[in-house]
Amino acid sequence: MSAPPTGRPGEGGGWAAAGLAGRAGRELAEAGCEALLVVAGSARDPDLAAFVGPVHLGRSLVVLPRGGTPTLAFFDPMEREEAAATGLPLLTPDELEIPRRAREGLEPERLLAAAAGRALALAGVVPGRIAVAGSGPAGTVHAALAALAAEGWTPVPGNGIARLLRKTKSAAQLAEARRSAAGLCRAMRTVASRLAAASPANGGPGGELWLGGERLTAGRLRAEVARSLAEDGLEQPAGNIVSAGRDAGVPHTAGRDDRVLAAGEPVLVDLYPRGALFADCTRTFCVGPPAGPLAAAHAAVHETLAAAREEARAGVRGWTLQESACRRLGDRGWPTPLSDPESTRGYVHNLGHGVGAELHEDPSFRKHAGAEGVLAEGDVLTLEPGLYDPDAGWGVRLEDLCHLGPTGLEVLTPLPYELDPRAWDG
Amino acid sequence: MSAPPTGRPGEGGGWAAAGLAGRAGRELAEAGCEALLVVAGSARDPDLAAFVGPVHLGRSLVVLPRGGTPTLAFFDPMEREEAAATGLPLLTPDELEIPRRAREGLEPERLLAAAAGRALALAGVVPGRIAVAGSGPAGTVHAALAALAAEGWTPVPGNGIARLLRKTKSAAQLAEARRSAAGLCRAMRTVASRLAAASPANGGPGGELWLGGERLTAGRLRAEVARSLAEDGLEQPAGNIVSAGRDAGVPHTAGRDDRVLAAGEPVLVDLYPRGALFADCTRTFCVGPPAGPLAAAHAAVHETLAAAREEARAGVRGWTLQESACRRLGDRGWPTPLSDPESTRGYVHNLGHGVGAELHEDPSFRKHAGAEGVLAEGDVLTLEPGLYDPDAGWGVRLEDLCHLGPTGLEVLTPLPYELDPRAWDG
Repeated sequence: MSAPPTGRPGEGGGWAAAGLAGRAGRELAEAGCEALLVVAGSARDPDLAAFVGPVHLGRSLVVLPRGGTPTLAFFDPMEREEAAATGLPLLTPDELEIPRRAREGLEPERLLAAAAGRALALAGVVPGRIAVAGSGPAGTVHAALAALAAEGWTPVPGNGIARLLRKTKSAAQLAEARRSAAGLCRAMRTVASRLAAASPANGGPGGELWLGGERLTAGRLRAEVARSLAEDGLEQPAGNIVSAGRDAGVPHTAGRDDRVLAAGEPVLVDLYPRGALFADCTRTFCVGPPAGPLAAAHAAVHETLAAAREEARAGVRGWTLQESACRRLGDRGWPTPLSDPESTRGYVHNLGHGVGAELHEDPSFRKHAGAEGVLAEGDVLTLEPGLYDPDAGWGVRLEDLCHLGPTGLEVLTPLPYELDPRAWDG
Repeated sequence: MSAPPTGRPGEGGGWAAAGLAGRAGRELAEAGCEALLVVAGSARDPDLAAFVGPVHLGRSLVVLPRGGTPTLAFFDPMEREEAAATGLPLLTPDELEIPRRAREGLEPERLLAAAAGRALALAGVVPGRIAVAGSGPAGTVHAALAALAAEGWTPVPGNGIARLLRKTKSAAQLAEARRSAAGLCRAMRTVASRLAAASPANGGPGGELWLGGERLTAGRLRAEVARSLAEDGLEQPAGNIVSAGRDAGVPHTAGRDDRVLAAGEPVLVDLYPRGALFADCTRTFCVGPPAGPLAAAHAAVHETLAAAREEARAGVRGWTLQESACRRLGDRGWPTPLSDPESTRGYVHNLGHGVGAELHEDPSFRKHAGAEGVLAEGDVLTLEPGLYDPDAGWGVRLEDLCHLGPTGLEVLTPLPYELDPRAWDG
């Protein structure tokens, strides 16, 4: 028995961004499609969530005819009240003939095909091309859509359309992003306070950090983060990064719990908790005087972040911001993805990504992105320059979650940037 | 930037259940397929996880030729070390020609089709029927598999095969289920201790519960649960149920945070946290003398659970256990899914389900289940009878997580069953 998370804001109407159906209509017309069909295993599906918000639904569909409005079809009769809370017109399990077919023991792919076919017909969609979004079991979804095709529908890829539609955040979604960001900030300040209270064993650089009579490990910081986020009703479905020294020099390394932290080395903390929406923010700390080029690299990264914030405006391409960051860091002598795409030293990743029901969504910062690569009002996105040198044993990244509002870019994670955690108190 | 959860046991070899490839070979032969292809967006995909364990992988594939062993194909060059930690033979992004095609800006469905086609060929699979498992974006997956079909492959549904393969838990998986169950039990005991310490305002039945000078709400219990689980490194990606009174009478109602709990009413607590695997357990509490038929219903549910535990053996069908539970509760005059499938009063759901990388997986307790409906050694499953009367304002459910081992059924959630939280202390 189970029910999805509760206590989320934004239930009922007002979750979907204004003008969603109209924008969908234009995208569908361009793709030559009669409708958008969203297939989902739960309301946690990012494409479905854009329409229904954080309600407690299992298997369900949304049908959005071109020029029409969305209809929600749900599979479980026990979810009638949750479905009604979305404020959308509903197609019930009985109308989809699901209970009868389930009693007959129909295979999952046949059940899905039958339900989707009925939902399309009942929503008034005439046979033709349909853009398919959402997600599901690969073999089941493929067989179900192949069965729909045999009945005169032509399913074409629609996940890109759905991603584009949810790029623009509604006021309710922005409020939820703020809530996640606020909880993230509290957890990050907890990390800073623990690091500020730690002391190196030998009082000098390279000495192991101790706190409260114990060695301070990455795992202990991680436990503090988990506790803080739980108190704010946030989860970490994708984990987090608490990495030190050489591990911080490899951007995808999550860090080992038993790693004892040391003075003079970078401690990179990248948190990406989720309420109904994700937040995402990184800070890099150093207890005591930073060793080697760490302070200079931190300054360069900080300056690059500040410049990106200035340049991030509606109408600008993410890729343009990435090129600018590459130029800035390249001018200082660092390898970048433009000058040396294979390098693991220097600036080795992209500048940012959209954030929402998925941790990585549009706007895209990729070179070949189309409309999804252009920043626009309503976007929630990260800016996250970094510099790394795994062989020298260090890495530094600074990442903010930002909202592009009517008056420009607003930082949703307004935290200090200082390496020194003792400078965070003020 | 992100990396998935860390600090999980079972990394590297030894995660997959013994004999997985052999069992897969038999299933593939029966389905007339040349190979199993698992498509996944991350190592969190339940079908992929059965092969790779709790490593930190993004988009990846597993190819398992009939009669052969699995090969892992990964898409992101930065994940080389994580991929190697699985102990599986690897196909690198370069071998799949992913970096080159990505630089060319290939659409996601074409990139997936090209990578899957190369992975199948490099794994030595000859064109023919392939069983497809895993999950992904519906439109993208369908188009990619349609493109594969144009190259001579015939993709057929394989999610059922993958589910059947992961039904049997390995020793490493069982250890992880135990870890999740232990954390769940600690959280449930925390709930019991808070309820035991609470007192009704007027000292009698129906009085609001107070604790530490505040009204005791479902939300406060939920916050304690979140804190306890976070301390044990567990997440609640699917939320939980803390429901009281009438809400407890509707099995799918998660319960409202602001609900003040009262003496004499049921407080139903259903927790399903996840480490690398889920655990799942329900208890129903009542502070003070239980109102109405609650005590009798609790006794009937407890007796039904004990009987199910006796009957759950290797070779028995889940549906047989459900029929037995229906008979037992029906004999006491309650409506059941057998006597009255539409009833919302009485016993209104199924007796149990498998638990693993998904909260609901095989063994299945459904009537029409095939091999996946037969209990076998290595299964991890719930048994969860309940009785409900939403109009009368109560519900009771008792659920244990169990492992079917070589010597019979073992309860992984050995907690008291008492309604009275004060009886939990002893």
